[in-house]
Amino acid sequence: MKLLYLIPGNVREGGLGIEEMKRREQILRQHAYPGTQVDLIDVPSGPASIESMYEEALAVPGLVSAIVQAEKDGYDGVIVGCYGDPGLYAAREMVKIPVVGPGETSAMLAAMLGHHFSIVTVTDSIVGALELLVLSAGVDRKLASVRAINVSVLDIGKNPGIVKERALAEARAARDVDRADCIVLGCMSMAFAGVDRELSAELGIPVVNPALTALKMLESLVSAGLSHSKKAFQTPPKLL
Amino acid sequence: MKLLYLIPGNVREGGLGIEEMKRREQILRQHAYPGTQVDLIDVPSGPASIESMYEEALAVPGLVSAIVQAEKDGYDGVIVGCYGDPGLYAAREMVKIPVVGPGETSAMLAAMLGHHFSIVTVTDSIVGALELLVLSAGVDRKLASVRAINVSVLDIGKNPGIVKERALAEARAARDVDRADCIVLGCMSMAFAGVDRELSAELGIPVVNPALTALKMLESLVSAGLSHSKKAFQTPPKLL
Amino acid sequence: MKLLYLIPGNVREGGLGIEEMKRREQILRQHAYPGTQVDLIDVPSGPASIESMYEEALAVPGLVSAIVQAEKDGYDGVIVGCYGDPGLYAAREMVKIPVVGPGETSAMLAAMLGHHFSIVTVTDSIVGALELLVLSAGVDRKLASVRAINVSVLDIGKNPGIVKERALAEARAARDVDRADCIVLGCMSMAFAGVDRELSAELGIPVVNPALTALKMLESLVSAGLSHSKKAFQTPPKLL
Amino acid sequence: MKLLYLIPGNVREGGLGIEEMKRREQILRQHAYPGTQVDLIDVPSGPASIESMYEEALAVPGLVSAIVQAEKDGYDGVIVGCYGDPGLYAAREMVKIPVVGPGETSAMLAAMLGHHFSIVTVTDSIVGALELLVLSAGVDRKLASVRAINVSVLDIGKNPGIVKERALAEARAARDVDRADCIVLGCMSMAFAGVDRELSAELGIPVVNPALTALKMLESLVSAGLSHSKKAFQTPPKLL
Amino acid sequence: MKLLYLIPGNVREGGLGIEEMKRREQILRQHAYPGTQVDLIDVPSGPASIESMYEEALAVPGLVSAIVQAEKDGYDGVIVGCYGDPGLYAAREMVKIPVVGPGETSAMLAAMLGHHFSIVTVTDSIVGALELLVLSAGVDRKLASVRAINVSVLDIGKNPGIVKERALAEARAARDVDRADCIVLGCMSMAFAGVDRELSAELGIPVVNPALTALKMLESLVSAGLSHSKKAFQTPPKLL
Amino acid sequence: MKLLYLIPGNVREGGLGIEEMKRREQILRQHAYPGTQVDLIDVPSGPASIESMYEEALAVPGLVSAIVQAEKDGYDGVIVGCYGDPGLYAAREMVKIPVVGPGETSAMLAAMLGHHFSIVTVTDSIVGALELLVLSAGVDRKLASVRAINVSVLDIGKNPGIVKERALAEARAARDVDRADCIVLGCMSMAFAGVDRELSAELGIPVVNPALTALKMLESLVSAGLSHSKKAFQTPPKLL
Repeated sequence: MKLLYLIPGNVREGGLGIEEMKRREQILRQHAYPGTQVDLIDVPSGPASIESMYEEALAVPGLVSAIVQAEKDGYDGVIVGCYGDPGLYAAREMVKIPVVGPGETSAMLAAMLGHHFSIVTVTDSIVGALELLVLSAGVDRKLASVRAINVSVLDIGKNPGIVKERALAEARAARDVDRADCIVLGCMSMAFAGVDRELSAELGIPVVNPALTALKMLESLVSAGLSHSKKAFQTPPKLL
Repeated sequence: MKLLYLIPGNVREGGLGIEEMKRREQILRQHAYPGTQVDLIDVPSGPASIESMYEEALAVPGLVSAIVQAEKDGYDGVIVGCYGDPGLYAAREMVKIPVVGPGETSAMLAAMLGHHFSIVTVTDSIVGALELLVLSAGVDRKLASVRAINVSVLDIGKNPGIVKERALAEARAARDVDRADCIVLGCMSMAFAGVDRELSAELGIPVVNPALTALKMLESLVSAGLSHSKKAFQTPPKLL
Repeated sequence: MKLLYLIPGNVREGGLGIEEMKRREQILRQHAYPGTQVDLIDVPSGPASIESMYEEALAVPGLVSAIVQAEKDGYDGVIVGCYGDPGLYAAREMVKIPVVGPGETSAMLAAMLGHHFSIVTVTDSIVGALELLVLSAGVDRKLASVRAINVSVLDIGKNPGIVKERALAEARAARDVDRADCIVLGCMSMAFAGVDRELSAELGIPVVNPALTALKMLESLVSAGLSHSKKAFQTPPKLL
Repeated sequence: MKLLYLIPGNVREGGLGIEEMKRREQILRQHAYPGTQVDLIDVPSGPASIESMYEEALAVPGLVSAIVQAEKDGYDGVIVGCYGDPGLYAAREMVKIPVVGPGETSAMLAAMLGHHFSIVTVTDSIVGALELLVLSAGVDRKLASVRAINVSVLDIGKNPGIVKERALAEARAARDVDRADCIVLGCMSMAFAGVDRELSAELGIPVVNPALTALKMLESLVSAGLSHSKKAFQTPPKLL
Repeated sequence: MKLLYLIPGNVREGGLGIEEMKRREQILRQHAYPGTQVDLIDVPSGPASIESMYEEALAVPGLVSAIVQAEKDGYDGVIVGCYGDPGLYAAREMVKIPVVGPGETSAMLAAMLGHHFSIVTVTDSIVGALELLVLSAGVDRKLASVRAINVSVLDIGKNPGIVKERALAEARAARDVDRADCIVLGCMSMAFAGVDRELSAELGIPVVNPALTALKMLESLVSAGLSHSKKAFQTPPKLL
Repeated sequence: MKLLYLIPGNVREGGLGIEEMKRREQILRQHAYPGTQVDLIDVPSGPASIESMYEEALAVPGLVSAIVQAEKDGYDGVIVGCYGDPGLYAAREMVKIPVVGPGETSAMLAAMLGHHFSIVTVTDSIVGALELLVLSAGVDRKLASVRAINVSVLDIGKNPGIVKERALAEARAARDVDRADCIVLGCMSMAFAGVDRELSAELGIPVVNPALTALKMLESLVSAGLSHSKKAFQTPPKLL
């Protein structure tokens, strides 16, 4: 199968740069099953990073266009490469191939691994949006908390040590104070920082990497011949 | 106070046209309290009409820009003039003046008028989005149903008689089958069709007009010196 | 329009006194829109103050009689002037004019201003009742906490400084510990103490004054030609 | 133990009359355990029957006084003898002895007997109140429906045949349409009509008689040395 | 009536021993109403104690067989004598006589005594299972917390002093931190330790003893002629 | 990776027989990714088929033993091969390798594919258990209905035509009456009947095959290095 991981922002000219895009593509390819081809591209019309619902909104029109194009180009499925799943439902209206997001898929998976999960994300500014995401996904009863390390997305790459340290501190508080028994890394820069295994070992509970979760869930859907319901996500009537 | 009603779409060149914009502005002004100035403008970068989450998404970037401009221009508050409240939360991140939507305000009001309310909207394609809107608003336990008349937004103006007839039929079913004790008209073209009083008289239960609801709720906020929480809707960190 | 604010207790001979009634009436009139007439009266058969469900119950029969009379006297709407909204639903069964309460209207408004709101009220004895009120209103998912300053209603007027200080302390705890992003003053004596703007400035989040909220919401309903559903709040069959 | 069943209305001069009171007292005594004394009295200040929240409100002040008196008279517990449990929480604030209601206790019991229960009550006018009762009790997720036979309380005694027939019809619809697997008779006149066993035999599912439920639950509490929490139902501060 | 209290484990050869069985039987008999006969037996095929869902599962087949036998032997009802209610629903499918569990009955009762209850149980390993039990019972909205004293079931009898001390500490935290207004002892060894009255006196809030609760609720059902719905708990089709 | 699909019943001597086991193993192997080895075995101590909570309970002790053995034998993960997920949580307590069930995984997946899903299962006797399963999984808000075709598990293989016809009828009702936009086949014999694609084509909405879902989700977990939280599913203390 042929999958596309779309970063809904301008990565090439933003803080992350093309090298980081290639590195992430490489990671996805390493984790894909034999026979899965994964490509990663950005959406140049989007913002440099997403830490708010406003920036999510800016990203969506270009993202959906790119997803429509991906379907035409023969991709079997698309991952929205931003933890907040911007435009996930809008995109599903426009295509038949499965579109998944790291936010929804990791919330669902975390809900299956335990009784109460917490999300550790980047900044306070996105906490409310992630709570709403879990509410829409339907597993809010299992959400213990959303906590922020308060390091910006673009600074995460600059100081991975601090990121790991702060993520560990917040995850510990989630486990001990909020009673979480599973942690989700709530940001793709945290996901691709490659610290999930190490954090899990230190915490003694699973740490879900949303990049892998989104990839695996999309491979699952394509492999099982499934896609989203077109009764739930209808093509806009004017486009019929 | 000085309020702006922003239609997040290209009305002037879309099906509705400038005359309809003027007519709606007139209606809003007639219902405003003495001392309230209401202006109505459209957002030319948006779609001709909104019947899907995709079209909502297309509308948002231009809409938020217009709201930011409205704050600079001295408006005291803004109404997002589309029933689905596209970009409501994103806009709140970008301004301090209150921003309200007809979807959220009418759901809240309907929840106060009875025990179970139903929304009668335009097309099946938007039903899922409106259910999610009520879930985010927090009054989903009081939502009896969302029903569609399956007449497109742009056709509503062409045949007001059919609209009223179908809205009445769906509202009756909502009342008798779904046990609704209050109806919300879930589309601004239905709202400005001016049929709410008549429908209410025929149904024997309140029919909420979301155009009036949004206007009255915004006047209430401005009059009470209130606006949304900037802890809940934080300015994007990069813009601080 | 002509509105009545009814205090469901014996204010004239209770601790507050007629001067306080006049002061509150003055405040309401100052905040009303041009063209709105607001009168304030008490219900002499009620208790001196309300800090329990028992006192709420004592207040209701006289309150409902007064509301029935208000409708006969040509009032367009009534505010139940006690934060716990005693008799709100019972009153709606007996009249057609809209009846609103500060508890329900401020909960709804607070739910629109952010994601999680807290109520700061007078005494622990009324906390359970206010939680039930929010549950009935339907926005319990957005309720972060109800906290009490543990100063009695009748003592609030005697020492406004302490009230402000304690309300600020509890509101801060609500914001920082319970994660509230919006505060509601959960008592009419706190509402009329006129500290909401100052508290909001110190807290950096909205503080909802339920006296204004109830007034504005009632003006909204009357202005929009709406009242509660008589299918939801039916006239008692014996009185038909 | 010594228990009091208090009818919160004027039964002696209302439609039911003293004979009916004696008959009901006899039924309660027959169902009590050996060693339990049950007395039944009415509250003459209350309404003749209760089919609305307004009539519930009228009943409460006199009812609570009678409950306070019952505690002084050495009763070990009190049953509020109206299905809607008027004044249940208010009464608990005023006494230490357990006070139970047929509405809450039968909802709890029904929730234990199956997955989805329905309440069959008298008139549409009380349906909303009973839904709120179940919500407050906390078992609303298990409530399939509240259905009304639309025979008034005072007419039930006059035509028991029709009552049984209509209750059976509504219970059948609850079972087959609303998927109820347990029925609660939602009115004390229906409870004392003595049709529960017969209905249950015809329906093939349990039919809960709230008079027995309230009695058995109160005997359980007294026998186990339990009463309501005075932290939850605090004595009004002014009365301390 | 003739009731059976079945301990779903091997008590005679496990840590507790036959003497403890006799002591518990004695306690149940002391609390039964006149006319109620209560017998207590264990299920030798079960585990020595239950502190996990795995041990619950081990206990169930033998337990259900014993319940089927009890029905044949003329018992009028059965109590599953383990706080986690293992096999409660499975057993109900196999018999017509009422089967109750201490977990479900005490959750329901606690939900009636206040607004928020906490369960104080033995070990962390069973906390998740008890949260799920309350969820299935339907009163999860009223659950403040489940706390563990982290003393094993088999050690409880060895050091009753420590048990009381730790239970008091956790119950205090439940009351003061989690806002519980009612405590349930979430383990039968804690229930039969006979400390509930003393704990309640020290805490100032009700402490529910699940052994008594289960007994009283079962007596209530038998006395009221009720049992679980066979529509909800159907006989397995192959056994029809 | 090396996975085990465990049927928690006696298939070899039950109605299905060894041939059917081999056929199902073949289907799983066909759908596995390259590099995944899937074995299928039954648990001879279990019942011939599972259509009740009682039969689920009978199956669990042997099933968990087999899962513990599977971990020792080097399997990387286990699928509980019965739609009701019997023993899923108990098994997780006993092993570190991931254990998934078709019920939970298909509910989660269905919740991601649309807004409202329905389960079409075998017999009415298992409907309540499946509703509880979805409640425990946490996505009950998205559950439209559970419907039964009322053909027994062992009869499904005998008359596949009738199964398809009845499943289609119930799925259609779920879609049109209960508003489902996604269907889950709620029985493994229905899953392995291979009708999901055909049903989906006729219905126009996704039909989730729980055999594939469970397989794909387990491959996802193993591939992502994840397993259930041992804080949520703790090893029984006595076995530590």
